[in-house]
Amino acid sequence: MQETRPGAGMDVPRFSGIATFMRLPHLPPERAEGVELGLVGVPFDLGTTNRPGARFGPRALREAASTLRRLNGATGVDPFALARAADLGDAPVNPADLADSLVRIEAFFDRLVTRGIVPLAAGGDHLVSLPILRALARRYGPLGMVHFDAHTDFYDRYFGGARFTHGTPFRRAVEEGVLDPRRVVQIGIRGTLYDGEDVAFARAAGVRIVPIEELVDEGREAIVAEARAVVGDGPVYVSFDIDALDPSQAPGTGTPEIGGIGVHDAQRMIRALDGLDLVGADLVEVSPPYDVGGLTAWTGANLLFELLCVLARAVARRRGDGAVTGAPTD
Amino acid sequence: MQETRPGAGMDVPRFSGIATFMRLPHLPPERAEGVELGLVGVPFDLGTTNRPGARFGPRALREAASTLRRLNGATGVDPFALARAADLGDAPVNPADLADSLVRIEAFFDRLVTRGIVPLAAGGDHLVSLPILRALARRYGPLGMVHFDAHTDFYDRYFGGARFTHGTPFRRAVEEGVLDPRRVVQIGIRGTLYDGEDVAFARAAGVRIVPIEELVDEGREAIVAEARAVVGDGPVYVSFDIDALDPSQAPGTGTPEIGGIGVHDAQRMIRALDGLDLVGADLVEVSPPYDVGGLTAWTGANLLFELLCVLARAVARRRGDGAVTGAPTD
Amino acid sequence: MQETRPGAGMDVPRFSGIATFMRLPHLPPERAEGVELGLVGVPFDLGTTNRPGARFGPRALREAASTLRRLNGATGVDPFALARAADLGDAPVNPADLADSLVRIEAFFDRLVTRGIVPLAAGGDHLVSLPILRALARRYGPLGMVHFDAHTDFYDRYFGGARFTHGTPFRRAVEEGVLDPRRVVQIGIRGTLYDGEDVAFARAAGVRIVPIEELVDEGREAIVAEARAVVGDGPVYVSFDIDALDPSQAPGTGTPEIGGIGVHDAQRMIRALDGLDLVGADLVEVSPPYDVGGLTAWTGANLLFELLCVLARAVARRRGDGAVTGAPTD
Amino acid sequence: MQETRPGAGMDVPRFSGIATFMRLPHLPPERAEGVELGLVGVPFDLGTTNRPGARFGPRALREAASTLRRLNGATGVDPFALARAADLGDAPVNPADLADSLVRIEAFFDRLVTRGIVPLAAGGDHLVSLPILRALARRYGPLGMVHFDAHTDFYDRYFGGARFTHGTPFRRAVEEGVLDPRRVVQIGIRGTLYDGEDVAFARAAGVRIVPIEELVDEGREAIVAEARAVVGDGPVYVSFDIDALDPSQAPGTGTPEIGGIGVHDAQRMIRALDGLDLVGADLVEVSPPYDVGGLTAWTGANLLFELLCVLARAVARRRGDGAVTGAPTD
Amino acid sequence: MQETRPGAGMDVPRFSGIATFMRLPHLPPERAEGVELGLVGVPFDLGTTNRPGARFGPRALREAASTLRRLNGATGVDPFALARAADLGDAPVNPADLADSLVRIEAFFDRLVTRGIVPLAAGGDHLVSLPILRALARRYGPLGMVHFDAHTDFYDRYFGGARFTHGTPFRRAVEEGVLDPRRVVQIGIRGTLYDGEDVAFARAAGVRIVPIEELVDEGREAIVAEARAVVGDGPVYVSFDIDALDPSQAPGTGTPEIGGIGVHDAQRMIRALDGLDLVGADLVEVSPPYDVGGLTAWTGANLLFELLCVLARAVARRRGDGAVTGAPTD
Amino acid sequence: MQETRPGAGMDVPRFSGIATFMRLPHLPPERAEGVELGLVGVPFDLGTTNRPGARFGPRALREAASTLRRLNGATGVDPFALARAADLGDAPVNPADLADSLVRIEAFFDRLVTRGIVPLAAGGDHLVSLPILRALARRYGPLGMVHFDAHTDFYDRYFGGARFTHGTPFRRAVEEGVLDPRRVVQIGIRGTLYDGEDVAFARAAGVRIVPIEELVDEGREAIVAEARAVVGDGPVYVSFDIDALDPSQAPGTGTPEIGGIGVHDAQRMIRALDGLDLVGADLVEVSPPYDVGGLTAWTGANLLFELLCVLARAVARRRGDGAVTGAPTD
Repeated sequence: MQETRPGAGMDVPRFSGIATFMRLPHLPPERAEGVELGLVGVPFDLGTTNRPGARFGPRALREAASTLRRLNGATGVDPFALARAADLGDAPVNPADLADSLVRIEAFFDRLVTRGIVPLAAGGDHLVSLPILRALARRYGPLGMVHFDAHTDFYDRYFGGARFTHGTPFRRAVEEGVLDPRRVVQIGIRGTLYDGEDVAFARAAGVRIVPIEELVDEGREAIVAEARAVVGDGPVYVSFDIDALDPSQAPGTGTPEIGGIGVHDAQRMIRALDGLDLVGADLVEVSPPYDVGGLTAWTGANLLFELLCVLARAVARRRGDGAVTGAPTD
Repeated sequence: MQETRPGAGMDVPRFSGIATFMRLPHLPPERAEGVELGLVGVPFDLGTTNRPGARFGPRALREAASTLRRLNGATGVDPFALARAADLGDAPVNPADLADSLVRIEAFFDRLVTRGIVPLAAGGDHLVSLPILRALARRYGPLGMVHFDAHTDFYDRYFGGARFTHGTPFRRAVEEGVLDPRRVVQIGIRGTLYDGEDVAFARAAGVRIVPIEELVDEGREAIVAEARAVVGDGPVYVSFDIDALDPSQAPGTGTPEIGGIGVHDAQRMIRALDGLDLVGADLVEVSPPYDVGGLTAWTGANLLFELLCVLARAVARRRGDGAVTGAPTD
Repeated sequence: MQETRPGAGMDVPRFSGIATFMRLPHLPPERAEGVELGLVGVPFDLGTTNRPGARFGPRALREAASTLRRLNGATGVDPFALARAADLGDAPVNPADLADSLVRIEAFFDRLVTRGIVPLAAGGDHLVSLPILRALARRYGPLGMVHFDAHTDFYDRYFGGARFTHGTPFRRAVEEGVLDPRRVVQIGIRGTLYDGEDVAFARAAGVRIVPIEELVDEGREAIVAEARAVVGDGPVYVSFDIDALDPSQAPGTGTPEIGGIGVHDAQRMIRALDGLDLVGADLVEVSPPYDVGGLTAWTGANLLFELLCVLARAVARRRGDGAVTGAPTD
Repeated sequence: MQETRPGAGMDVPRFSGIATFMRLPHLPPERAEGVELGLVGVPFDLGTTNRPGARFGPRALREAASTLRRLNGATGVDPFALARAADLGDAPVNPADLADSLVRIEAFFDRLVTRGIVPLAAGGDHLVSLPILRALARRYGPLGMVHFDAHTDFYDRYFGGARFTHGTPFRRAVEEGVLDPRRVVQIGIRGTLYDGEDVAFARAAGVRIVPIEELVDEGREAIVAEARAVVGDGPVYVSFDIDALDPSQAPGTGTPEIGGIGVHDAQRMIRALDGLDLVGADLVEVSPPYDVGGLTAWTGANLLFELLCVLARAVARRRGDGAVTGAPTD
Repeated sequence: MQETRPGAGMDVPRFSGIATFMRLPHLPPERAEGVELGLVGVPFDLGTTNRPGARFGPRALREAASTLRRLNGATGVDPFALARAADLGDAPVNPADLADSLVRIEAFFDRLVTRGIVPLAAGGDHLVSLPILRALARRYGPLGMVHFDAHTDFYDRYFGGARFTHGTPFRRAVEEGVLDPRRVVQIGIRGTLYDGEDVAFARAAGVRIVPIEELVDEGREAIVAEARAVVGDGPVYVSFDIDALDPSQAPGTGTPEIGGIGVHDAQRMIRALDGLDLVGADLVEVSPPYDVGGLTAWTGANLLFELLCVLARAVARRRGDGAVTGAPTD
Repeated sequence: MQETRPGAGMDVPRFSGIATFMRLPHLPPERAEGVELGLVGVPFDLGTTNRPGARFGPRALREAASTLRRLNGATGVDPFALARAADLGDAPVNPADLADSLVRIEAFFDRLVTRGIVPLAAGGDHLVSLPILRALARRYGPLGMVHFDAHTDFYDRYFGGARFTHGTPFRRAVEEGVLDPRRVVQIGIRGTLYDGEDVAFARAAGVRIVPIEELVDEGREAIVAEARAVVGDGPVYVSFDIDALDPSQAPGTGTPEIGGIGVHDAQRMIRALDGLDLVGADLVEVSPPYDVGGLTAWTGANLLFELLCVLARAVARRRGDGAVTGAPTD
């Protein structure tokens, strides 16, 4: 069976070797035998309407993530001890055809989900969540979602008619029945609006929108408790748009909005999702051409690691691993 | 009558076309018939004593502001529905003569104020507030001011004798009677001092200085409530020096001081000025040569938008528009 | 009649005011009465296959070009004295639809060409040349072209099927009969190749390809003399892809190739096109997200000015202006 | 006697002249007669295991610190009025020999400590604390320490065997008896771990580790009160690793960890150390090649100034200066 | 047998997937069965005396090289058709021990050379050439060398005693007999000197030093012809220090010297080495922390490709491949 | 007597210690006993009309120059063996008063020239040449000048009336009789012009202007031979505006013009001035806020060193040092 743990930073320098997510073995799906948790890049940004560049996200995230150490210092979780993980490479895309790319991405994730691999995707722009959700819903039915973002991404159309952009994935996902809007919570919403129709639609559908003002006023703990209640016991997806964060902490993204979530709060909120029935996650909209000193890639890589930790615990829990029935330290 | 609303981002891409503030029509003063709220650049930094560059602020702010959407997502305010606004271009300056520049700038704003146009200025260094205040005081008498800054700008002289620098505008304004010091509040003051004479003068004159420590300890809401009480019912000017913010969120400025106001708090404090008798505002000291990834220009553009929203409501209120008698959501 | 000369840098600082090409008046086509030479931005990069960003080129080029002075120091040409020029704004694009964008761009240039306005376009990626050539060919028939580039842009398809990318415009233009391949010369070609089919097609069609090695070995003067012979007396278009230049002098582009044309040579080659029957030109592939210190935008703006000078002389010559029958100094 | 106060910023521009710490006179140790407080650069980073560059820290900190003004605006402290200070230049290092460098650095500080000069060192990587502690312990015995950092720096070995790296100084210091672990508190610890052995060792030895989560939850005041209790009345060293801060506020460091201490809190915690028996301090791990817009150097320079203020008060207090027996304002 | 050709850029986007040199399969030595030409990273910079950072070179070069196309446009060479190539990963290093690193690197290359794999190494600082030369000399005897550099790297010692730094590899190599100094030519030498002893030693030993002035005055063709004569028919190594180039074209390096070799000349000189008995090559001193816009990595990747082309032809020629007996086009 | 040689790079690392020009001792004029050649910073940019920042030039040049080695590798000159040199610190300036600054700068240089110290100044903007020339002319009478620049700096006035800007120093110098226009040669002139009046005035006065086109066409050697003839045997000043260089090699300057002098040619032309009666020199317009990766400062520092070498030989020759009567190697 394949090796599914990172190389040791004390034996091989972390700046050395081919860059993979967390220095995990690179196992293309056809060699991913026994993998439980698959890290996947999705180098796609044809859904971007303003500043493209997220197609380069997976490489920058791999490069940054290769310097992470093995253990979560705050919670004590060693994800690689809990679940067999690997870097499955990038989902295939067609850089000249948005629709064809969505088909290819969905097929790739379908293959993983079918084999029971829990996906952790690194975007790419936010439209990549749609084909992943489709693949997951085929197995799990309509999903709940904890969604960190500055924007609702519940727009209907862009520029007269475009139905598939990085501002529309969840509108489509709700229409297609792959997301259950009453089990969706969006945290960190802010910024100027075209007309507010996106917010109106989402609220009407039952989505719980938590604007940044509410997060700041109520505090992280209250909001995440409510989020847990909203998504309940069913299968849950986590989508983390890096623009949820304050642009001083994540400048490298296409549509920054000032006054965002602090990174510390983001880390704690992800950790607090532990115990939910997590079936997949993504971190999207890291755009290296707009990054400053690699900060966004580094932040994104660390949040990927936090997501990996809670996903690994979910995998182990579903497998019946007794060691993870309790909560980790935080 | 001229068009006074931004082009629609859903019809014309926000990255397209000549860059104006919020994609507003560019109407030089002679064509500004009917305009109620005038956005003006003041490309001047001859008052800068250390790191010049704010002369390039207006262009960077226009470029950034052109990508803003129409609606304030937090308060629901659509400023362009409340007041007829336009980009009036830049005030004239003489880049080889500080004194002549002050004369030209004052004359330009005089023309606007005389016609009843409420000015929202984008600096330029902080000395540009002086000629604007002079023009406004001619119409309104001594003004109150809510002033966000790391520095008091109440110095007397610089380098032996210079009386007009970006560290002295409010000393001059108080001496000239265009500012009423008992109706002035300064928020965010911090950093090392030459000798503290500026602080002593300001306090003696009745200015309320709120150091950053007090803002952090007392909280935004208490401070802004006191600020409202200090400026009272009379005409009020808002001056926002971008160096009030933490340098991680606004690096592109000439005199950064560490440990500043958080952007989220700044947004909320500006919104909380709604209801005051606001007669003008500026945002100054954005210095593009020192910016990092455009973050300061983007932050400045968003704060200009927040200022625009409260100014637009003041305009509408003075016009007797019933829709704005209540407070906006926040 | 509209003003069609730049504001004077000695009266208004060059860093001041709304940024337009060369500080020319901004005249949307509907107000472009009497304009002979129209500078147009084309903020489009959906044809880009690797690193997008050229959509932001027009704004960066306007910002840079606004600081140019009036007179060509090397040749003595004052283009604004020779031809009535204006900044006509940006051609319309649909950022979510490549095909629709091509239609919109072509229609825009059609309107200009129909009125006899000579277009000088600032891209945008290289695919924007195609709709411009279509518009020009409708008036002038198949065009000759002097083309500066690292790449032939004579590819047939990309990624299985895409026929319209920034690597294919001239393949399409030849197929559609808007370019006469025997009157096309390409200067500066270099870099790694997929398979060389583009070069083979172009040569078979009669295109004269001048690889960088030949330019260096034969020298600028010999090559440009041959270029003049190739395009002959008929109507000629000039297309300047900024990636023709060495990446140290023009880093801000999507597909840089090392070892490129030196800027000095590029300036002299453009000047040496004087006297040809030039009917339009473009400068493309300036990609601000990849620029370094604004160098590429500044270089591009200066080359736009060189193109403007030779176009203005062509306009004046066709108008029968005796002053331009001789060659300018160089 | 030598001049030991900064040049006046109102007489000589702060951007002028040879760059020294706070524009203090540069007095090599042999001319440091009468100096009580010595600022010293330690341009050494051979202890760095991942991203080197801190060897360039002293110069960047001098350049930044040269623009500080004389007075602490928050506390009113004028350190130069309390203690005779000077820039003593850089400690000698051997850039090709780690062990030899440690010997040279220790000898240099020995000389200062022997003369009763209180050292304030600017690193360099964190290994430089070790020779400084050795020199101080020779005079004062085992020291207490307030240590701000993302990492414990209590590792034992690196890469099989290296005992002296920037991850091991305090392990060695405890082993050698120069640090008293029961009087050591570490604030801001976080990030991924190799295996947690460092934390286990430190805790077993009696070190009080305050992870970032605890600092955020308990608040700065509670933590600093506890820190004062931990170090007690004995001689105390302060070591500030710039990576204690959030990377958005201090990007220029070799081993950033997301979600760090806010700069405002850091300033307040340093000020709150006033009254302890401070005998030396350092600020380390500023790495200019990784800095962004000079922010880290600027932040580091300001924190050096905060350290200087509390050290100067300790010097004056020990000298019996009555003016400093009370607490400064804050 | 393993696949040893790059993925096709027309099927998989070049920005996609795990980054390897030229998108070649990643085959660790134990799986490198049948490989003739091995690309290897050497992430080592402990030999650097001033600005470290070259340890990050291999990753940056892989990232850049992954976007190269298959065919050399200038010479028509398809290296992958001529020789079976692979990315063999990084040579092992010990980031805390210079001497141990040299041992590990040499052992790694020994293994390759023993199997007949021709190495193409990507540094790392220039000291990495020494262990590679040792491994090659064990098979081929004393080597000739064509060396592009700003510095001779013939220093004896550094800082009193260090014998192994990036300024000394060829002094050691000559002393150890792995280089034959009478078959060594150094091209591009320039810059300020400590004392000139390095130059004196090299010349006395028979090395042909070509200062940049001579290259400029005599021209590339004369110099390369002489270089071919100097190295003659025996086995030849090519070492390309990126600081040979002008710093405007390769800023990302530790010891830049102004007025360097132009990239175009460098490309042509490498191509002109075709036909020599090339047995290995390296490209060193790319230092990503000092790079600007990725230009140095991009340039380095392209020069690696040029080296790959001439090496591949040497491999094929030695194998007896008739197709490569003639010279390629240039 | 004071030490007047740089610290040795083999004993003290070049990145270590207080940054002075070439690591020379810092001797304020009052301690400059016996110094023959004085390096002086002039941190002044109030003459700048567009992009300020050159006031920060001296510090950046010191920082860069501190890493130079002792010996000129191309000519073999060791300037410190030929003339007693020191870093005399910065000339005093008044950052709030242009006219007062000119008085202070002139007085400072007067003092040096009176004592027979040959000045080598590091600007600052180009206006600083005027007070230096005034001080030199008082001793030597009207000077000849070799002037490298993109601009003539022979403008009369700026913006209606300003007579003292960085575009006017040589107009004033000719009017005041401190420059002899018939002994002035300007090399590298290019770029767009306001109206060409500056060129007309200079030519009428007898100045020899060498546009960049002529330099490229005629070659460096012919031009420098003519320059030597123009300035003749009398006392000569050398003024090197860094914008003479191509902006790819010197981006950090206020008024870059594309297509400039190559650095290699600049080095050789400075070296070829050896033997002239050189009485002073400056290098101006390095503007760190616009620099990219420190390249301009590094280039400027190296050119300062080349100037130092020819000045040192002139000093030694006038002193009657036989060793320098012959030409150095080149």
